[in-house]
Amino acid sequence: MDIYKNLQELAITLPPVSIPAAAYVPFVVSDSHIYLSGHIAKKDGKVWTGQFGVNMQTPEGIKAARAVAIDLLGSLHAACESLGKNLNDIEQIVKVMSLVNSSPTFTEHHLITNGCSELIGQIFGDRGAHARSAFGVAQLPMGACVEIELIARINSA
Amino acid sequence: MDIYKNLQELAITLPPVSIPAAAYVPFVVSDSHIYLSGHIAKKDGKVWTGQFGVNMQTPEGIKAARAVAIDLLGSLHAACESLGKNLNDIEQIVKVMSLVNSSPTFTEHHLITNGCSELIGQIFGDRGAHARSAFGVAQLPMGACVEIELIARINSA
Amino acid sequence: MDIYKNLQELAITLPPVSIPAAAYVPFVVSDSHIYLSGHIAKKDGKVWTGQFGVNMQTPEGIKAARAVAIDLLGSLHAACESLGKNLNDIEQIVKVMSLVNSSPTFTEHHLITNGCSELIGQIFGDRGAHARSAFGVAQLPMGACVEIELIARINSA
Repeated sequence: MDIYKNLQELAITLPPVSIPAAAYVPFVVSDSHIYLSGHIAKKDGKVWTGQFGVNMQTPEGIKAARAVAIDLLGSLHAACESLGKNLNDIEQIVKVMSLVNSSPTFTEHHLITNGCSELIGQIFGDRGAHARSAFGVAQLPMGACVEIELIARINSA
Repeated sequence: MDIYKNLQELAITLPPVSIPAAAYVPFVVSDSHIYLSGHIAKKDGKVWTGQFGVNMQTPEGIKAARAVAIDLLGSLHAACESLGKNLNDIEQIVKVMSLVNSSPTFTEHHLITNGCSELIGQIFGDRGAHARSAFGVAQLPMGACVEIELIARINSA
Repeated sequence: MDIYKNLQELAITLPPVSIPAAAYVPFVVSDSHIYLSGHIAKKDGKVWTGQFGVNMQTPEGIKAARAVAIDLLGSLHAACESLGKNLNDIEQIVKVMSLVNSSPTFTEHHLITNGCSELIGQIFGDRGAHARSAFGVAQLPMGACVEIELIARINSA
């Protein structure tokens, strides 16, 4: 299985590594694990703002979570490259944490987050089967509708 | 110390592994660590819904967090079994993250989460002493009152 | 580079390890990583309460996040000492998760969290470059305005 071929078949072009909005870095490699910072949803290069239960609905949220997944993969690719490797060296997507900008009554955070999880499954197959937490937050930086962070394990050979 | 004897003395029967509500898996083993997905509170097999500061109080929340802990241990047992091991091979409960469905004025997330942490301590003794974050979220998937995720280290010998 | 000299130049005195408010421990060492529990902001020894967008503003939040960073470093120092090591043995600050007590309209969680991230950068230099997630929570234990948890890797030689 070639991850880049899978991306091509889905017509996905990986973006460059996401530049953090503040005083931190997009990824850290520690032993065999890559820790990606929380990536906020973007649309046409701008922050994808909105709050579910207020001015956004689940179908649009699924698209936003899928867009975050693509940005996460762009950063993950960059992290692999920093080690002289590539996405085919990812042994496992270990864990995803998904923060959904949510009113106190919205309860479909899991469906929104599937926009990310399902794309990861399509691209990585069994290696994409990840642990996950998804929940509703009061707000997100710059009003983003979704923020997702990810941990992956890379072949350390 | 036999973990299963401790469970028996507390009259706890472990449930089967919790089936995720969406496109992810209940646990991932990565090197020597087991990452459990966020488990939402259940009562009589259904989602245990409610929001603290709105229609639930701390004593009931402590029970809900304890119930989540039992479900987490069911999944942890299954994770151990997938490696040909069991809960006696858990070297340390490393970290717990507890998400409490909370109004903007409720401030007892730590007391609720003790329902999980104290049970882990009773069952695992020193090996159950874990790092922890607990906080109030705007909402949870399907309206659950509590969601908890857990990281444990297993004997990799 | 001597971390303790950097602390001295910033006129920072490390506090003793933070005592958890509940049934868990301030840190767990697992293999080469140190997991610090979520530390809530304190001022003059008491919980630093407040909610952004309600009764607190970003500049005060930056100070609160910086104060949490100092408490985290006190606990990290204690974790190093428990291994017969010290902060100079920290190879990398791997990941920070910052929970900002936030109204549904406040969107500067990243700026507040910089109060923590920038201090870590000043003290640890390149070893302080960390992955990060920051977001707005509905409330925090005891009404704290900020809670931050941290993962670091220590020289395991």
